[in-house]
Amino acid sequence: MKNRVLTGDRVTGKLHLGHYAGSLKNRVALQEEHECFVMLADVQALTTHFERSELISCSLKEMALDYLAAGIDPNKTSIFIQSMVPEIAELTMFFSMLVTVNTLRHNPTVKAESKGAGLDELYYGFLGYPVSQAADIAFCKATLIPVGEDQLPHLELARKVVRRFNELYKPVLVEPQALISEVPRLVGTDGEAKMSKSLGNAIELDCSAEELALKLRKAKTDPARIHKNDPGHPDICPIYAYHGAFRPEGAVEIRENCEAGTIGCSACKEKLRLALEGLLAPMRERRVDYAARPRDIDDILQAGTAEVRRIAAVTMGEVREAMGLDYFGRSR
Amino acid sequence: MKNRVLTGDRVTGKLHLGHYAGSLKNRVALQEEHECFVMLADVQALTTHFERSELISCSLKEMALDYLAAGIDPNKTSIFIQSMVPEIAELTMFFSMLVTVNTLRHNPTVKAESKGAGLDELYYGFLGYPVSQAADIAFCKATLIPVGEDQLPHLELARKVVRRFNELYKPVLVEPQALISEVPRLVGTDGEAKMSKSLGNAIELDCSAEELALKLRKAKTDPARIHKNDPGHPDICPIYAYHGAFRPEGAVEIRENCEAGTIGCSACKEKLRLALEGLLAPMRERRVDYAARPRDIDDILQAGTAEVRRIAAVTMGEVREAMGLDYFGRSR
Repeated sequence: MKNRVLTGDRVTGKLHLGHYAGSLKNRVALQEEHECFVMLADVQALTTHFERSELISCSLKEMALDYLAAGIDPNKTSIFIQSMVPEIAELTMFFSMLVTVNTLRHNPTVKAESKGAGLDELYYGFLGYPVSQAADIAFCKATLIPVGEDQLPHLELARKVVRRFNELYKPVLVEPQALISEVPRLVGTDGEAKMSKSLGNAIELDCSAEELALKLRKAKTDPARIHKNDPGHPDICPIYAYHGAFRPEGAVEIRENCEAGTIGCSACKEKLRLALEGLLAPMRERRVDYAARPRDIDDILQAGTAEVRRIAAVTMGEVREAMGLDYFGRSR
Repeated sequence: MKNRVLTGDRVTGKLHLGHYAGSLKNRVALQEEHECFVMLADVQALTTHFERSELISCSLKEMALDYLAAGIDPNKTSIFIQSMVPEIAELTMFFSMLVTVNTLRHNPTVKAESKGAGLDELYYGFLGYPVSQAADIAFCKATLIPVGEDQLPHLELARKVVRRFNELYKPVLVEPQALISEVPRLVGTDGEAKMSKSLGNAIELDCSAEELALKLRKAKTDPARIHKNDPGHPDICPIYAYHGAFRPEGAVEIRENCEAGTIGCSACKEKLRLALEGLLAPMRERRVDYAARPRDIDDILQAGTAEVRRIAAVTMGEVREAMGLDYFGRSR
């Protein structure tokens, strides 16, 4: 069955290998089988970046370039801008009547992220971003949402809000299903649990061949391994994690050789570099090609947004009718 | 100086004398001097009535009739429907990033109303309705907001949000001023502190001459006054409060005669009835006239909403530009 798949990213900076392994690769595959929408979540980015909104404006088109470079095909996937779909804000308002403050306060992901966001206080918009996410999903009647484990509480909330709406008014909205991502969070080059631009441990998708080589050369490995003949511990080595994510066909061999002390870290990194270069080189080419045609990027974003707004208008017509807020529908 | 004045009512039922004395009368006067907007606040009504949204759909056009009957002139005042202005929802989303949860929790009016609304739990949309009100005011750059004392904390929040936005991004929004209403809350016919349809102690603006007479006949007076020659206590008598609100020119005489025991309650009520009949009779006529032309009501609401959306589009263009979210403005 053909699903409608919604994914997206907060617009807060360029994408890196963590995004590719965690979701972009999957999106490129999904667009072959399903109707796909990718949202540039600029409004959601404001929940943490309202004091640095210039970062959002600078990043938006870079991220669109990252998508296109990574293989998102605008003929198969609608790429759209969240803030340009007012229907999402409208549906968020309606949904916000259906969710209690306590439900949001007890959401484990909101709790963890609120601590991590570096905001000194909990802001109203931050507390409510799962409500806004429910609207992101419902306005376009997405059926399948690829998520990591940490995002499951949000999807569960979205499902609950949709059910509540359908029960209370009329069953016009679609309850989305989770497609749990198989790839766990990618570690940073410094061995930190998460690759993140702000931690300085990321390999960006637009990095040059030289930058890639340098980042890998500097990347941490098993710290207990001093001589190249020492037996290594692949499970604590970021380089081994990258082999698993980007070169799975060779990972077993790497593990055996590392544990036996028959491959040194430099040789191991070189094998990875070749694989990553094979992944990133065509992205670089597509990026250069698109970057030379900025109007085409604008057209792609505007066409994707227009496509999504056509769907949004239909959904919101049904939503208003269900709630009895279509005051002129039947009287004229 | 000509101000832009915004007022409105939650769409939860017909209007009564309390609304007239507290705000409608003032609006009818203001429209002669200022640019006036009256909002049918159906989205805000959802904060307490999401489980009874049919009440909103049934009430909306009745309330529009009440406005027109009371003398709001659609050639001078734009009457518009909140849910049909998506820009309000969009601005609410942006404002929700600028207000902390604690600020909303400590707002005395939200606290009091949350208790009074009969909801078993605090809902996210209810907690945030002052944020939405700030957007109501800011989207149309209203300069003057007629408010009762109890609404002052909301207006103060709106002013604070506007200042925060202007400081953080660019000074494109207007800080509104309060126009504190001189008429205190009108008591109910049962002597309860507030006239309210749900308490069954209201005199609706569309009541017939017979209904008016009956409601006044049944209305409470000074309970200590048993015989018509007993000296009365006008300050605890709802009928005296109505004289003050609707027949101020005769109120001093009523007080003197009541306190001296030289006017009975029936005669006092009859004087009031004549005055109220003089107020309501022309409203009834205008109501009958408009009610016979439902398409004209639709036209008035649609034209008012369209007028407001023209203003909203300009404001939101400035807001997006200020925040850096106008991605295509300058590139094409």
